[in-house]
Amino acid sequence: MTDLSPLSELAPPPFAARHIGPDNAGQARMLEAVGFASTADLAAVAVPEAIRTADRLDLPPAASEVEAIAELRVLASRNTVLTSMIGLGYHDTITPAVIRRNLLENPGWYTAYTPYQPEISQGRLEALINFQTVVSDLTALDVAGASLLDEATAAAEAMTLARRAGRVPSNVFVVDADALPQTKAVLRTRAEPLGIELLESDFTGELPDCFGVLVQYPGASGRVRDFRAIADAAHSRGAQVVAAADLLALTLLAAPGELGADIAVGSSQRFGVPLGFGGPHAAYMAVRDGLQRQMPGRLVGVSQDADGHPAYRLALQTREQHIRREKATSNICTAQVLLAVIAGMYAVYHGPEGLRRIGRRTHRHAVVLAEGLREGGVEIVHDTFFDTVLARVPGRADEIVAAARDNGINLRLVDADHVGITCDEKTELIHLEEVLAAFGVSGAVLTDLDAATHDALPPALVRVSDYLTHPVFHNHRSETALLRYLRRLQDKDVALDRSMIPLGSCTMKLNATTEMEPITWPEFAGLHPYAPEDQVQGYLELVKELETWLAEVTGYDAVSIQPNAGSQGEFAGLLAIRAYHKARGEHGRDVCLIPSSAHGTNAASAVMAGMRVVVVACDSDGNVDLDDLTVKIDKNRDQLAAIMVTYPSTHGVYEETIGRICELVHEAGGQVYVDGANLNALVGLAKPGEFGADVSHLNLHKTFCIPHGGGGPGVGPVAVRAHLADYLPGHPLRDGSAVGPVSAAPYGSAGILPISWAYIRMMGGDGLRAATEQAILSANYLARRLSPHYPVLYTGRGGLVAHECIVDLRQITKETGVTVDDVAKRLVDYGFHAPTMSFPVAGTLMIEPTESEDLAELDRFCDAMIAIREEIAKVASGAYDKVDNPLRNAPHTAASLLADEWAHPYTRAEAAYPLASLRENKYWSPVRRIDQAYGDRNLVCSCPPLAAYED
Amino acid sequence: MTDLSPLSELAPPPFAARHIGPDNAGQARMLEAVGFASTADLAAVAVPEAIRTADRLDLPPAASEVEAIAELRVLASRNTVLTSMIGLGYHDTITPAVIRRNLLENPGWYTAYTPYQPEISQGRLEALINFQTVVSDLTALDVAGASLLDEATAAAEAMTLARRAGRVPSNVFVVDADALPQTKAVLRTRAEPLGIELLESDFTGELPDCFGVLVQYPGASGRVRDFRAIADAAHSRGAQVVAAADLLALTLLAAPGELGADIAVGSSQRFGVPLGFGGPHAAYMAVRDGLQRQMPGRLVGVSQDADGHPAYRLALQTREQHIRREKATSNICTAQVLLAVIAGMYAVYHGPEGLRRIGRRTHRHAVVLAEGLREGGVEIVHDTFFDTVLARVPGRADEIVAAARDNGINLRLVDADHVGITCDEKTELIHLEEVLAAFGVSGAVLTDLDAATHDALPPALVRVSDYLTHPVFHNHRSETALLRYLRRLQDKDVALDRSMIPLGSCTMKLNATTEMEPITWPEFAGLHPYAPEDQVQGYLELVKELETWLAEVTGYDAVSIQPNAGSQGEFAGLLAIRAYHKARGEHGRDVCLIPSSAHGTNAASAVMAGMRVVVVACDSDGNVDLDDLTVKIDKNRDQLAAIMVTYPSTHGVYEETIGRICELVHEAGGQVYVDGANLNALVGLAKPGEFGADVSHLNLHKTFCIPHGGGGPGVGPVAVRAHLADYLPGHPLRDGSAVGPVSAAPYGSAGILPISWAYIRMMGGDGLRAATEQAILSANYLARRLSPHYPVLYTGRGGLVAHECIVDLRQITKETGVTVDDVAKRLVDYGFHAPTMSFPVAGTLMIEPTESEDLAELDRFCDAMIAIREEIAKVASGAYDKVDNPLRNAPHTAASLLADEWAHPYTRAEAAYPLASLRENKYWSPVRRIDQAYGDRNLVCSCPPLAAYED
Repeated sequence: MTDLSPLSELAPPPFAARHIGPDNAGQARMLEAVGFASTADLAAVAVPEAIRTADRLDLPPAASEVEAIAELRVLASRNTVLTSMIGLGYHDTITPAVIRRNLLENPGWYTAYTPYQPEISQGRLEALINFQTVVSDLTALDVAGASLLDEATAAAEAMTLARRAGRVPSNVFVVDADALPQTKAVLRTRAEPLGIELLESDFTGELPDCFGVLVQYPGASGRVRDFRAIADAAHSRGAQVVAAADLLALTLLAAPGELGADIAVGSSQRFGVPLGFGGPHAAYMAVRDGLQRQMPGRLVGVSQDADGHPAYRLALQTREQHIRREKATSNICTAQVLLAVIAGMYAVYHGPEGLRRIGRRTHRHAVVLAEGLREGGVEIVHDTFFDTVLARVPGRADEIVAAARDNGINLRLVDADHVGITCDEKTELIHLEEVLAAFGVSGAVLTDLDAATHDALPPALVRVSDYLTHPVFHNHRSETALLRYLRRLQDKDVALDRSMIPLGSCTMKLNATTEMEPITWPEFAGLHPYAPEDQVQGYLELVKELETWLAEVTGYDAVSIQPNAGSQGEFAGLLAIRAYHKARGEHGRDVCLIPSSAHGTNAASAVMAGMRVVVVACDSDGNVDLDDLTVKIDKNRDQLAAIMVTYPSTHGVYEETIGRICELVHEAGGQVYVDGANLNALVGLAKPGEFGADVSHLNLHKTFCIPHGGGGPGVGPVAVRAHLADYLPGHPLRDGSAVGPVSAAPYGSAGILPISWAYIRMMGGDGLRAATEQAILSANYLARRLSPHYPVLYTGRGGLVAHECIVDLRQITKETGVTVDDVAKRLVDYGFHAPTMSFPVAGTLMIEPTESEDLAELDRFCDAMIAIREEIAKVASGAYDKVDNPLRNAPHTAASLLADEWAHPYTRAEAAYPLASLRENKYWSPVRRIDQAYGDRNLVCSCPPLAAYED
Repeated sequence: MTDLSPLSELAPPPFAARHIGPDNAGQARMLEAVGFASTADLAAVAVPEAIRTADRLDLPPAASEVEAIAELRVLASRNTVLTSMIGLGYHDTITPAVIRRNLLENPGWYTAYTPYQPEISQGRLEALINFQTVVSDLTALDVAGASLLDEATAAAEAMTLARRAGRVPSNVFVVDADALPQTKAVLRTRAEPLGIELLESDFTGELPDCFGVLVQYPGASGRVRDFRAIADAAHSRGAQVVAAADLLALTLLAAPGELGADIAVGSSQRFGVPLGFGGPHAAYMAVRDGLQRQMPGRLVGVSQDADGHPAYRLALQTREQHIRREKATSNICTAQVLLAVIAGMYAVYHGPEGLRRIGRRTHRHAVVLAEGLREGGVEIVHDTFFDTVLARVPGRADEIVAAARDNGINLRLVDADHVGITCDEKTELIHLEEVLAAFGVSGAVLTDLDAATHDALPPALVRVSDYLTHPVFHNHRSETALLRYLRRLQDKDVALDRSMIPLGSCTMKLNATTEMEPITWPEFAGLHPYAPEDQVQGYLELVKELETWLAEVTGYDAVSIQPNAGSQGEFAGLLAIRAYHKARGEHGRDVCLIPSSAHGTNAASAVMAGMRVVVVACDSDGNVDLDDLTVKIDKNRDQLAAIMVTYPSTHGVYEETIGRICELVHEAGGQVYVDGANLNALVGLAKPGEFGADVSHLNLHKTFCIPHGGGGPGVGPVAVRAHLADYLPGHPLRDGSAVGPVSAAPYGSAGILPISWAYIRMMGGDGLRAATEQAILSANYLARRLSPHYPVLYTGRGGLVAHECIVDLRQITKETGVTVDDVAKRLVDYGFHAPTMSFPVAGTLMIEPTESEDLAELDRFCDAMIAIREEIAKVASGAYDKVDNPLRNAPHTAASLLADEWAHPYTRAEAAYPLASLRENKYWSPVRRIDQAYGDRNLVCSCPPLAAYED
């Protein structure tokens, strides 16, 4: 120790040292194993010279965690949280503190992955079944999904579902003139490429021929319309009826399913989910029986495990893109799980009578307000309403809205003559007094008005049917009981707080606490997406910085963070390409080339964007077949719109030919779309915008640390080169953009953008590059350790992989009968989430370690994989039975191992503790292997009766 | 549904409905079982008329959770967080976000109980062993305890330990003149009743005869003194040497144990624990080999379980009050576990090199500051220092401190001529510049000074020895790794987030999230206890309100929240009595009557307060024997100082004679101390200050919802009638109080007072009374359900118990050999924490359900107890072996149940799943029954080598 070390040498380790798992010693051991002197040397060999970026990332130098929080506090202080009475599908709500702390702020929930491995996801699957039951009960429709992205896109999905379902020879979709404006805007964006004609209607005349109708219930203006006659008219034309309905209103109003709706959509935001400047929130969709196999998105269903016990899993997955590609029901491949779980728990916490009370209280405030305005001489447009009062104030609207703002309340400026005021769970009489004052009304005694004024619900629409009768909505009312229910569910699941989740293509890296903390600060959580700009300056600054930084990282010129999922980013990117061609008069360009190895979502998105998919072959190494590419380009030269490629490839390889692919496509007049799914292998080393691509979407929930939330939220910004910048998504409430909005909120899931902002701010350019280099090292270390035991598929230069590697079980399966499924489920017994199964190649496992796993955890995983290989060898040698072996029987529950009779030809301890370390730290699967087919044959998508659990 | 229900009927359910477990239906079922029409009727019979209070509590009406948070935000906004450079043992520090969220804000950690049941406490016990290792390593002393309350009381405990240990014929304890002022003040408070003479010394002359010496290392003035010569002189006189040492300084300085200290004490606050306006923080004590059996407080040690695996538990418990009563080593019966765990994890997170870096960085800032001041012409008093620079500025100190405050920095105003400036982990050069400016120094180039100035540590005291070499301080450096370590430890333990903790006398009720959230807000967490009053107005207002409310609840006239544990409250209360008698000239009153059933702490506290304990007998019902009381009063009439009784009694009964007891004692000139341990049975129904008591301490961590934190923090306010108000604890830095301070910080553990404030604010008077009534109902419901299976000991009027009940196993043990221990450990297999064992009566279990458990959980517990009774019956009948049965072998680990050979005469499933519900929700004990004696015979109190875990 010197006694003269300068302070600069005593600075805290950078955040990157906490984010990146291996320490220097661990990294050195890994480099030695892989045979390189440094991570930079490794990257120099692994990443083709031609695509490497010359310069260091031009980002602000890395801030410490304390500094980043301090800067975020400054940004937060530039947001002003007024009382929001704007409505339009976004309402203030009370997130119960017990839910905020133990769910929204709990890594046991927020770091979980999509429940593709249902055995280790029973907790969040149960929570999602609760959500589905809430939706199904309140809408009185048979099957509800596990959530969609937002109400506007859910309405768009309902529109396409209606078209698929109806088989009516019409391209017309009729939209309620009183629908939410952002819903109308997103419907326009989505209808145009599909050739759907949108007709707006106030339903006063005869219904035209159409394949579907959307009614807003209650309307954006507050009106509550009895749409039974509309539904009858639609049905008589063979059209489907979509109701966009407010869940809280449904606690008091007759349910859509009771009024003839075939499909209901809406938002569950006001069930305890913070406003967050527009998202993320869980939208919902419910359908009548008969439409469930056409539904977009995720659906949780009940099935049974190998012991016949009830168990949850995702149902009807054959609808989805990974199976059906361009024929999928939708390009949606995620949900808003974390938010849906919150909404479901809000219902568990309040129960039906609590929700009804909140609904009634909200309604009564609106009633009192309307009466107060009327008595003050203000004209109220609609006699019946739920929570929203529309006031006609000729020429005075601006002035009234401004006066209310001065009183701390945001109202909706409908037009120069109309003001909308929406009540919510947080509305108090004091707010109504301020609103009345803004209208110039004084002297009203609100409690007297309350006592004297009747409800404003249409008598024919007063709800009489029950909802939420299941015990789960009655048994967890004390905070203690709810706390334990949350813990019990959490304990069933494996998330990143327990062990590595080595999912290829999913980048399950650290979601650092400092990144997560700001999102529940009131200044970020409490803003309405349509709040006036002067109240949201902090957010706008944060968005602008983040977009700028993402442009620097990707080498593009412009970024929009509006798309609230990767699929939406893809769609937005393809819309930009489409609009670009059109603007140049090249209307015929509608062919999208997609390699056979691509994510199914690519094809589904292309179809949504009105393109025709032409598949390009891959060679035996998983690379794009240049010969076939040339043929396909030649064949479609004049129709070529774009190619969509993933880089590094879905096979985890840096394709050498990417530059050539870009050239060929550009020469033919096409645009190059690089899917950003694997951007974690590029950041700081190469930029798609530099090496030839025109557009990409990024996944902030992969590369930029937004947690997966158990299957959402996601954020999928779209990044483009300058020539496409004019075709980025537009503002949902403003006209004039070349391409309309793809999300309901102008900045999409703005509420979670502080996460990625903080990540980039704390990593700096060097930290980001170091993370990428470590991710590459970790993948190659795994490949090196596993390759003596399992063949590693696909390597690039120097026998290296990129940031993930594929181990091939096909020969093993042929020889022993042990499948990837067996290995995946056996990994549960070892305490691990399985790698990605059978993508991009059936019969393989794709492993992505990410940079955040330290050497000990990587080794623990390798030890498990190697021990499993030894078990497979015992099957091969006959030491284990071909059928009755620990692999085929995995996962083993504790209960199954403690049966009085043990009939298996291996021991209980062999099943439970194949490695000694498991005796110190054992995860017990709550169920045995789940029968997927049984659940699809016997579809149950809401809470099963308790009797189902009795033995 | 009416359509005219007024808004007042639609208000949200009060917080009380979330805090109180049973809903209306559950309460009705319980009332029916107990045979009453309402909880009020039950309380009217259970609680003696004579003590019942006439009026409803005069408290503000209950606020909602949202309202309470809003009010706390207003209070928070009245605190101003400046940069604190005051020092004096309180330093700003960075709590790593991963630790704050996943430990300090995680109910899995903060709702846990003291680890008396070690099998279900292995997680926090391991965390405490880490803490002990940190302390032991850094102090270079052999054995470190699991934390004490604060540095000042730790010093006082060291003083009495020195007296016990030395057996030197001297009453003199020599205190460093450079000791922290609050330490000196608390030593004075503690020394006086014990007849210890405190001599302050600057150690320039010869050391007088004494039993102990305390040196501050570094001193309050910043000076770093080599105390080897002092230690030698002390040892030559047979005296013990206590070093009050700063843990961060010890990363750079020779350790106390290396310099001759026998005992080291200090604070671990600056290891990541927020300032919190003074607490709670974990103090530490470490001792050389030979003193460990004399140590006060908790000590965690390694032992082994029934399978020979290493396991942790509290060691050497025979030192404690429940065994030794007035002969105990101390009255301390808790620790600061949650804070010690944070400090230990901070060391795990940073490792030795990280701590050393933080230490060096802190030191270098002080070095640069001193040099800057010197160059600016300011005299620096000490040439060597660690973090604190003492500047001599004749006549200018006030002005400089004021100028710094204007620059946003608090300095220490030592006297008119001296200013102290202390650096810490958060100090930056910008702060030094502001400080220099306040001194009128300008033009210093700090980086140049840094490059040119040597360290200011005495060369002879530069540390050369290693510390924190154990792997635990090296293996969890990435955030991911630490997150998983925290989760793994948490999962080993049972806390309130998993199941009921039915501990008699401990009141394990809900710690609601809304109560907990504010304590980590910067405005409450970031204040120095000696910050100027105008910066802490929010805190002062909160404290004043809380004291007023507590006075109203207890019927007393004045309250001090300074005592930071129940034991300290007892001590403060007895000091008030002692001072009162003295002030009246009744110096001879030193007898404290204590019923034989009392908590051992009562006796230990009385001894500390200089009283002689005289035991009063109890009758066979556990009530105070009035005849014996009369005899004892008569015998000690002129010496009678006080009686200490618990009400309701430690037997869980409302004694009818409490009024008479008070009268008898008062007639003899004594004061009545009512221990508030069981106040949860009185709140809203009766007030000790009304029914005859003069003083009580309360336990905010029992009755008023501060979580137990795994064994601390606690808050033990003392409440007195008007005649004792002048004798409440004084401010530690202000002279003039009749009784000195009992804690280092003026408002004790101020940082957690928002919890109790929020609880009272949200319950209101009616809610508090309803909680008490429910607690009584729940205890009686349990007694009713269990009494057919186990005899229920001690009931009061109408055969009712108060808020807890005692089930008697003595006859069962006699008949079957099954002990309370067996039942307690078997409850672990059923997923429950055991009730209180063998207190107040050996061979019994005392159960306190609290109001927060709902009927389902109460029934689940009863079902477990009844099922266990059936197992006991099988032992009695011979169906189970007398020795090899599921009770004696409990708890069963999963590993022990999965052994290849199963030799027990009961099945594996019988062991694991005695109730079917356990198959849905099973807690697995991480160890089998722990051998207590083995650990005490082979005392190991720091991290065991990893080899210990190898089979």
